[in-house]
Amino acid sequence: MSYLKNETRLINPFTVTIDFAENIMLGADVHNERKASVMRGYYKDSAALEKIITDGNDPLHYETFEKHVPEEYGHLLFCISKIQPGLVGNEFFMTKGHYHTRVNTGEIYFCLQGQGYMVMKTPSGDFDAQKMTRGSMVYVPPYWGHRSVNTGTEPLTMFCVYPGDAGHNYGDIEIEGFPKRVYARKGSDLIE
Amino acid sequence: MSYLKNETRLINPFTVTIDFAENIMLGADVHNERKASVMRGYYKDSAALEKIITDGNDPLHYETFEKHVPEEYGHLLFCISKIQPGLVGNEFFMTKGHYHTRVNTGEIYFCLQGQGYMVMKTPSGDFDAQKMTRGSMVYVPPYWGHRSVNTGTEPLTMFCVYPGDAGHNYGDIEIEGFPKRVYARKGSDLIE
Repeated sequence: MSYLKNETRLINPFTVTIDFAENIMLGADVHNERKASVMRGYYKDSAALEKIITDGNDPLHYETFEKHVPEEYGHLLFCISKIQPGLVGNEFFMTKGHYHTRVNTGEIYFCLQGQGYMVMKTPSGDFDAQKMTRGSMVYVPPYWGHRSVNTGTEPLTMFCVYPGDAGHNYGDIEIEGFPKRVYARKGSDLIE
Repeated sequence: MSYLKNETRLINPFTVTIDFAENIMLGADVHNERKASVMRGYYKDSAALEKIITDGNDPLHYETFEKHVPEEYGHLLFCISKIQPGLVGNEFFMTKGHYHTRVNTGEIYFCLQGQGYMVMKTPSGDFDAQKMTRGSMVYVPPYWGHRSVNTGTEPLTMFCVYPGDAGHNYGDIEIEGFPKRVYARKGSDLIE
């Protein structure tokens, strides 16, 4: 199919397995670990995060498992994202959060394990939080920056799919933050 | 975000639920049913299909459950696809199969229930078949026409994700067919 060679790359079909008991991807070839120290600046209680880093020898905070697919228009990238349970002060463990480099691309998050929220914002200040439990499929539409928050006692594990040309933009979220945070409170979670 | 209004539509986040016990999508707003009669011309044994249509009063063959999302670049469309088990002669029940209108777009099929194959071809004659069981995630790369085949005794149910601008092209597969079919055979399935 040489007439297509300047567009999307032609690759062969393949299969990975999502183990529903262990909530892992068998056949992944990329494993990204994010330790607690990469979260400096993201939580309200900086001192509580420093204590976690020191006491736990910079423990694992969240991780992704991926299979390499060309990062090009037409392909779909996918991953397993797993966030550890815990609190920084009274704020639940979460991911940094990101926009897509191509702002007009969405993402699908399919919750396999645990509970939490997909917290979202637009550059113009809109805010949304969708509750996730096993089986929830959250649609993060184009333009919405997004972060996952683990409010449970086990890992929050999600299967994610996004366009091959989406790209990740962490920088703008690092500067802007999110309009609201998710805190543990007796009886129910507090989003404020 | 008026500066974006000529690109992808801005919509609000939402959640649907995939019920892992019943293998259905709660919150779907589109339900497409494909009855046996739409499969005329697709199976090798036409007479066996006619008997199924007559005896069963044109029974359900396969169906999809979707949630409306704009069919535009940057969005991701998703569905549950469910194929009934059975045989037309000795050929397993299957879908019509399709290319994408934008040929350089892929699709993800995540098997939730049952067993079967994702059967694939390119316009230039390449062929591939990936085995699916619960937990298998088949990557259908750009350019590959694809059809699902149910080789089990229960419905074959898959969660699918594809780009918003992919589109469906059934016509070319209707004309070309696939280079191989999947038959029941004592001991193991036969792909020939």
